[in-house]
Amino acid sequence: MSGSILGDIFKISTWGESHGKGLGVVVDGCPAGVEISEEDIQKDLDRRKPGQSPFTTPRKEGDKIEILSGVFQGRTTGAPISMIIFNKNQKSKDYSALKDVYRPAQSDYSYDLKYGFRDHRGSGRASGRETAARVAAGAIARKILAALNVKITAYTSSIGPIKADPKNYNEDYIMNNFLYMPDPVALEKAEEYLRNLIADNNSSGGTIECTVKNIPEGLGDPVFDKCEALLARAIMSIGAVKGVEFGRGFKAAEMTGYEHNDFYRYNEGEINKVTNNAGGTLGGITDGSDILLKAAVKPTPSIEKTQQAVNKSGENIDLSIHGRHDPVIVPRAVVVVEAMVALTLVDLLLKNMTSRIEYIKNVYKK
Amino acid sequence: MSGSILGDIFKISTWGESHGKGLGVVVDGCPAGVEISEEDIQKDLDRRKPGQSPFTTPRKEGDKIEILSGVFQGRTTGAPISMIIFNKNQKSKDYSALKDVYRPAQSDYSYDLKYGFRDHRGSGRASGRETAARVAAGAIARKILAALNVKITAYTSSIGPIKADPKNYNEDYIMNNFLYMPDPVALEKAEEYLRNLIADNNSSGGTIECTVKNIPEGLGDPVFDKCEALLARAIMSIGAVKGVEFGRGFKAAEMTGYEHNDFYRYNEGEINKVTNNAGGTLGGITDGSDILLKAAVKPTPSIEKTQQAVNKSGENIDLSIHGRHDPVIVPRAVVVVEAMVALTLVDLLLKNMTSRIEYIKNVYKK
Amino acid sequence: MSGSILGDIFKISTWGESHGKGLGVVVDGCPAGVEISEEDIQKDLDRRKPGQSPFTTPRKEGDKIEILSGVFQGRTTGAPISMIIFNKNQKSKDYSALKDVYRPAQSDYSYDLKYGFRDHRGSGRASGRETAARVAAGAIARKILAALNVKITAYTSSIGPIKADPKNYNEDYIMNNFLYMPDPVALEKAEEYLRNLIADNNSSGGTIECTVKNIPEGLGDPVFDKCEALLARAIMSIGAVKGVEFGRGFKAAEMTGYEHNDFYRYNEGEINKVTNNAGGTLGGITDGSDILLKAAVKPTPSIEKTQQAVNKSGENIDLSIHGRHDPVIVPRAVVVVEAMVALTLVDLLLKNMTSRIEYIKNVYKK
Amino acid sequence: MSGSILGDIFKISTWGESHGKGLGVVVDGCPAGVEISEEDIQKDLDRRKPGQSPFTTPRKEGDKIEILSGVFQGRTTGAPISMIIFNKNQKSKDYSALKDVYRPAQSDYSYDLKYGFRDHRGSGRASGRETAARVAAGAIARKILAALNVKITAYTSSIGPIKADPKNYNEDYIMNNFLYMPDPVALEKAEEYLRNLIADNNSSGGTIECTVKNIPEGLGDPVFDKCEALLARAIMSIGAVKGVEFGRGFKAAEMTGYEHNDFYRYNEGEINKVTNNAGGTLGGITDGSDILLKAAVKPTPSIEKTQQAVNKSGENIDLSIHGRHDPVIVPRAVVVVEAMVALTLVDLLLKNMTSRIEYIKNVYKK
Repeated sequence: MSGSILGDIFKISTWGESHGKGLGVVVDGCPAGVEISEEDIQKDLDRRKPGQSPFTTPRKEGDKIEILSGVFQGRTTGAPISMIIFNKNQKSKDYSALKDVYRPAQSDYSYDLKYGFRDHRGSGRASGRETAARVAAGAIARKILAALNVKITAYTSSIGPIKADPKNYNEDYIMNNFLYMPDPVALEKAEEYLRNLIADNNSSGGTIECTVKNIPEGLGDPVFDKCEALLARAIMSIGAVKGVEFGRGFKAAEMTGYEHNDFYRYNEGEINKVTNNAGGTLGGITDGSDILLKAAVKPTPSIEKTQQAVNKSGENIDLSIHGRHDPVIVPRAVVVVEAMVALTLVDLLLKNMTSRIEYIKNVYKK
Repeated sequence: MSGSILGDIFKISTWGESHGKGLGVVVDGCPAGVEISEEDIQKDLDRRKPGQSPFTTPRKEGDKIEILSGVFQGRTTGAPISMIIFNKNQKSKDYSALKDVYRPAQSDYSYDLKYGFRDHRGSGRASGRETAARVAAGAIARKILAALNVKITAYTSSIGPIKADPKNYNEDYIMNNFLYMPDPVALEKAEEYLRNLIADNNSSGGTIECTVKNIPEGLGDPVFDKCEALLARAIMSIGAVKGVEFGRGFKAAEMTGYEHNDFYRYNEGEINKVTNNAGGTLGGITDGSDILLKAAVKPTPSIEKTQQAVNKSGENIDLSIHGRHDPVIVPRAVVVVEAMVALTLVDLLLKNMTSRIEYIKNVYKK
Repeated sequence: MSGSILGDIFKISTWGESHGKGLGVVVDGCPAGVEISEEDIQKDLDRRKPGQSPFTTPRKEGDKIEILSGVFQGRTTGAPISMIIFNKNQKSKDYSALKDVYRPAQSDYSYDLKYGFRDHRGSGRASGRETAARVAAGAIARKILAALNVKITAYTSSIGPIKADPKNYNEDYIMNNFLYMPDPVALEKAEEYLRNLIADNNSSGGTIECTVKNIPEGLGDPVFDKCEALLARAIMSIGAVKGVEFGRGFKAAEMTGYEHNDFYRYNEGEINKVTNNAGGTLGGITDGSDILLKAAVKPTPSIEKTQQAVNKSGENIDLSIHGRHDPVIVPRAVVVVEAMVALTLVDLLLKNMTSRIEYIKNVYKK
Repeated sequence: MSGSILGDIFKISTWGESHGKGLGVVVDGCPAGVEISEEDIQKDLDRRKPGQSPFTTPRKEGDKIEILSGVFQGRTTGAPISMIIFNKNQKSKDYSALKDVYRPAQSDYSYDLKYGFRDHRGSGRASGRETAARVAAGAIARKILAALNVKITAYTSSIGPIKADPKNYNEDYIMNNFLYMPDPVALEKAEEYLRNLIADNNSSGGTIECTVKNIPEGLGDPVFDKCEALLARAIMSIGAVKGVEFGRGFKAAEMTGYEHNDFYRYNEGEINKVTNNAGGTLGGITDGSDILLKAAVKPTPSIEKTQQAVNKSGENIDLSIHGRHDPVIVPRAVVVVEAMVALTLVDLLLKNMTSRIEYIKNVYKK
């Protein structure tokens, strides 16, 4: 069954394997008239490029985006927008030794179970590289949201046991370090932690937080298209994500109603929430307050440290995975989280256009 | 936009408000030949009925399910299955005083923001009662899964700060206490905790764990229909759920790759995982090991303890919500979690039927 | 696979068999604020009720519609709208003799081929009665379209070889005769033709034309959601329909480009088409001119005239179908065609709301 | 709203404009293990290439297909299959003079109505060239159907008033003449008819018939996913198609039930239909007999003969369209009809895999 198409109105159809000819995405359902250029999209892509940091792989991917359709004289026409990135620097020979090996915590075994065989080069369709297509589509979604002043900000909230402290939060700092951490104090500790792990041929997990400001009210459709339900699905579809929570999340489970409920007070004629434990939604619908979410990312599975594995010939083996891989996925996933949040919110935005008969009459009045 | 339809092949379309004439669901896409009866479905519904426990509301809902179509001589025909529960015991007058009040942490305000007005009786479409329709549909899904020996078990893993201890886990105990806790020691503490909260006119949150055994391999479609992505969306669509995690979840974020990776060993010619930190999936596809997940449930918003609220006339008010409401949602949500897991897995099961050309040739060979 | 759900935004989910407990529909995605009542819907249903005419079956179906959800104080709330018609007058014993017989040109054999067994009472899910649910949903769609002055008019354009003459077209006449013909001259000949067929225990086919006036411009989405593609799908889904054409339809195949092209001329600053051979669309998108379509309806398959048939025991039999059935389906299908056109157009209307970024900015501007 | 995605399981997402950088399609949901190569697809594409016939445009399009993903070592992997054709020979300057003109019977005006502006080069997304992407996707569908011996054959059944005679039907002849006519006698008359029209700077319409042999039984889902409903939608989505009929189609409207019903007789233990007026389906489900359908194609709108048109500045103009265009669309559409039929049938094939619980148990038995 198809699993590479997402969205109800703003639909994206992604394709491509890490070691195939290229990867890309077709965006269908984008409204006409959105100003977009290859530069807009390249900017977001460049945030996820490896080879920039001592904490991500040294391989240079050179992802260069091309728009092949759906844009005319700088604006979307309403026709599908096809975008492509050609693969340039994928060394197949890195993986030939692994053709018959099942690497722990990777998709090798489950793809064989599902399809009966698999493209063994790299991780094929399961590769993290596939997310470049999502980021490209997300850039278009972000353009639409930006026109409404919606601001999506994701950052690394923890690496292993090292947690960023909200008191030290500095938004400008996020984009100025390789780990995308907003707390310089935690950053130092995280860097040391990672250096030790790299020396041990090991890897680390972490968490990513994301806030959305200025989100329009009323987004989300009871009951199955609740805002947080669709956000959860989008974020959990990112490889390596193992959990997601909204507002106080798992902490809300330990609170009482009186503690957790966000009280209302009028302030200059407008209804405000005294707190925002809910994280931006009520009954699955946005109420205009900030959306707050956090995702848990597992450690990179590919490590050189020797693991117990098996091969297809029935043998138990000791496996040390040589080659190029990230000791920590989290920083690369930050922009992917933003893209998935943007794609989900723009789809909700479009879906909400038909909530009231007044909206419809306004568009079609003569 | 429609938000009450879920599924790609096994589709459910739910309807009904807490204080309307009734509620129900249409199941479309169920294979023909499944043996199903009203008794099968009533059994699951009766688990969520209030009035049984000192820890849930005393109102008696008397949910009696009727199957109106799609079943002939005890088997599904392939036609849509319509099921209905007529509302009998909903007192509208409980809520008339709240017509112009925005209750904190409830959907009153967000529904007004979205639609411009709302059905103020109870929580309308946002009511927890709406989940009865999901449980009914889930009962059919569970029938199909049971034929493959799939076993879904959910239970309360914590109430407030009181956590069930896995060492005391006793599966038979789950169905024999009102809180659906599998640990008798924790149960006592949780009961005491709740009694104190009730005395304080307050409410509690909690968590629900769910395991799935004997799940077929190969379920889930990269990249957006990953097994855990669709499970997350289904579970997050349950009202009051604020987070969901799979396998080690948020703990995985603090582990190293060597600690988190599940190693492989052959055991009598079959590949086994030495651990199951992943919680049943790899690359979004099930590998036959147990699915493990946990959901966080916020405290019941409706409490008698006085809160700061507002009304539509621009006034700040102090609000004490009288009437009938649960001090803790978690036990009632346990069977709903099982239903949502069943619905998601059966849809994935059906979607996986077309993964390989061999499956297709087998069905159509002459 | 589910086949009883239609629509992308305004979704309908129908259910029910002719001899089951009832039939109904859930409408999901209807905008909030539409004024609707059971009377509105009953009006459309009563047009398709048999027992009114000498040319349709004498059985009295007594279809009474009930709205069970989604409407509050006379307006849609945005929640799913469930409507139900309970079956009152279906005599199962009419069909018990046919349990093991395959009636020619009916779905008996194909349902057995697909599902392995079938509900043999009447035609089960294949019954024409199922269309009552569509008409009910169509009534809501028509309410929305009426607010924009969209006018859908269908009528019988031919019965067997008897064709209505456009020169004698009288719109008021349509609703004043049992055959829904707009030409009194043709009506007389058709009635005589049918009387002869009834005397011969036979049945007739016919055609239905439908015009849509005042349709907003811009509806339809290239390439697969073209306006006429979706109309065709909706109309072809009505049982007994064997063909559909738009504008000049099959006559366009015999014309030259110069003859068929609709020329443009300005008239008081507005662009007009000199002719409307296209029938209302260009490139699959409405241009504001009238939509014109015609559907071909096959003769009623159930006839008393003796036919060659078979039974499940391997025997060739001669079959005369006693009981209650229509000698001509066409008049009953007229209101169903209107309903399907309304459902398709309202969905297109809603889908077009997101075509331009300007529409979106207008809704979300602060 | 997105309109370029088709299918429920075997989904295609097409993109590209006639004068953009290229066009292509992403196929998602194709089962793993299908043997496919660029040669397979190129073969079907080459049938629709212009420059081969005196009756289609002399432009050489040089459509060369590239597969960029989803195929590994000659077999589909289950991952999305992206295919692309780069545009080489599209002269933009042919159309610059038409930037502000609304050509009759083309999408210029309706696209402006919908989107507010348009890509004026050629017909942008409305161009017939877009169908090349469909043909490429259809080639994969045909591979799957061929494994089940399904045979789809389309041909030109009429050009203008010249009709092919079924008595002269010669299947081998179809692929050996530029007009794809199966009747050499009619072919001569059609060629003469076209030569006269070309001399008059005019164009012609026509009809295409298509038969499908060896189609598995049981395909189609009541009520909205009936086989002919989905075929109709797919075929009506081809530009220039104005009508579609199945079996006897519009002739059935003039027949009696006794004439139209297909009788049953046993023949060596198998149920046969004595006739096939129904054209392969009953109740929307295939019964194993041949599917028979016919599509009506309007004449090519672009003609050099002077027409009445308008421009955007409020002026009535006389328009003669110079440049390169087909005098008749029908032959080029023949392979597109086959592709759309293949795409629809393979999706129905896959959807039918979940009709019976037995099919599901067979796949998942251990």
